[in-house]
Amino acid sequence: MPRYSMLVAYDGTDFHGWQKQAGLRTVQEELERAVQKVVHQSCNVVGAGRTDAGVHALGQVGVFSADAEFEPHKLAAAVNARLPEDIRVRRPTVVPEGFSPISDAIAKGYRYRVRFGSDDRAPMRPLFGRRTNFWTPHALDPVTMNLAARRLIGTHDFASFTRKHHNRESTVRTIHDCMVTRTGRRRLRLDVCGDGFLHNMVRIVAGTLLEVGRGRVKPEQIEQVLVARDRTAAGPTLPPEGLFLMWVKYP
Amino acid sequence: MPRYSMLVAYDGTDFHGWQKQAGLRTVQEELERAVQKVVHQSCNVVGAGRTDAGVHALGQVGVFSADAEFEPHKLAAAVNARLPEDIRVRRPTVVPEGFSPISDAIAKGYRYRVRFGSDDRAPMRPLFGRRTNFWTPHALDPVTMNLAARRLIGTHDFASFTRKHHNRESTVRTIHDCMVTRTGRRRLRLDVCGDGFLHNMVRIVAGTLLEVGRGRVKPEQIEQVLVARDRTAAGPTLPPEGLFLMWVKYP
Repeated sequence: MPRYSMLVAYDGTDFHGWQKQAGLRTVQEELERAVQKVVHQSCNVVGAGRTDAGVHALGQVGVFSADAEFEPHKLAAAVNARLPEDIRVRRPTVVPEGFSPISDAIAKGYRYRVRFGSDDRAPMRPLFGRRTNFWTPHALDPVTMNLAARRLIGTHDFASFTRKHHNRESTVRTIHDCMVTRTGRRRLRLDVCGDGFLHNMVRIVAGTLLEVGRGRVKPEQIEQVLVARDRTAAGPTLPPEGLFLMWVKYP
Repeated sequence: MPRYSMLVAYDGTDFHGWQKQAGLRTVQEELERAVQKVVHQSCNVVGAGRTDAGVHALGQVGVFSADAEFEPHKLAAAVNARLPEDIRVRRPTVVPEGFSPISDAIAKGYRYRVRFGSDDRAPMRPLFGRRTNFWTPHALDPVTMNLAARRLIGTHDFASFTRKHHNRESTVRTIHDCMVTRTGRRRLRLDVCGDGFLHNMVRIVAGTLLEVGRGRVKPEQIEQVLVARDRTAAGPTLPPEGLFLMWVKYP
């Protein structure tokens, strides 16, 4: 039974996240509906990771099996033609029958986009960027934020950077890279990649770096936040609109 | 009675255009509602030009009078706080009592944004750009399109570039500049400014240049389209999502 994998991009604004939920519009359900119309059989589309309500993806991975053989590019074009305008698939490939986009993943990359600051001539939240950026009226210092971001690289217990009731056996994760880049006068982004992420981890990392950018926390204090292993030691959970799942890596 | 002017930016996607219409969501109505909450009186907000359903603006001009005197920046901040997230105002100023944003305007600038082309790895319409770009799967040649665009500069009868039943006395307009710029591998924009525009004129200019970009019309044929003074001589009216009112100039 051939198994297919595609990159899935979506504008998460109008979805209740990836995972199917009765009565709610989700990416997984819309994708399954489009795939089923093309392959003419019921099938389950497995993603590399659940994204929460409002979170976007450029490089989510969707995997499904079908009885018939399809030329991958034709299959992707047919699925795209049946998808709503806020989901697209690309880079279709055939994968081994046992391939799991969840357990075979060895690394993931996320981006969090921020617009910041105000003045009399532009005293406002972004208009066209409002669906894809978090906005804060406060001035931020991206250079200091980056100093703090570098201190998260490595293998640490990230218990401070996830929900209190996380239901995970271990909260130890390895961050391969974590970087804040200024991308404009009032824009920055956080890029973070690692072997795995706890629930809300990137949004709490972004919220903690925001406190650093406002001057309320010093970069050296990141160590204390990690050592505390306590959610209240970290900054706020930033909203979903700035977050993008960028890529998932496989061996 | 003090009169105030502000630049108005909006994402036109979810509006039935600028002009108030009973039972439909329009920019003018949302703006008047926000202004009235701030100035505590009924008032009419006049725009520099009506934009059609789905058309965006970065530099629309909104003008209104109120009995009370307001510090302009505070007024704009208060209006912004009451506006929906797809409208923003900026650059508030006090203008003379007789100021009309329509009849005092001496020039206007529009931009039309296009994404084009397809290949196996990216065979699709834009995802995050879908609300603010027209997309065509055809390959386009921006250099040739620009040659055609230059031929529209000057004072011409633009009867071929408006709706058949336009109800305008004269269809003669002066285009000060008209330029096509490649802005990426599969992106271009048309910038056009002039003393005034007929209904649908920019969208028909864009549609005619698209025919040039596809190689179906030669740049030299633009003269024939102008001379014909017949809507059917020009290209199609492109959809509203690519069009932005960029600025309005006053003496």
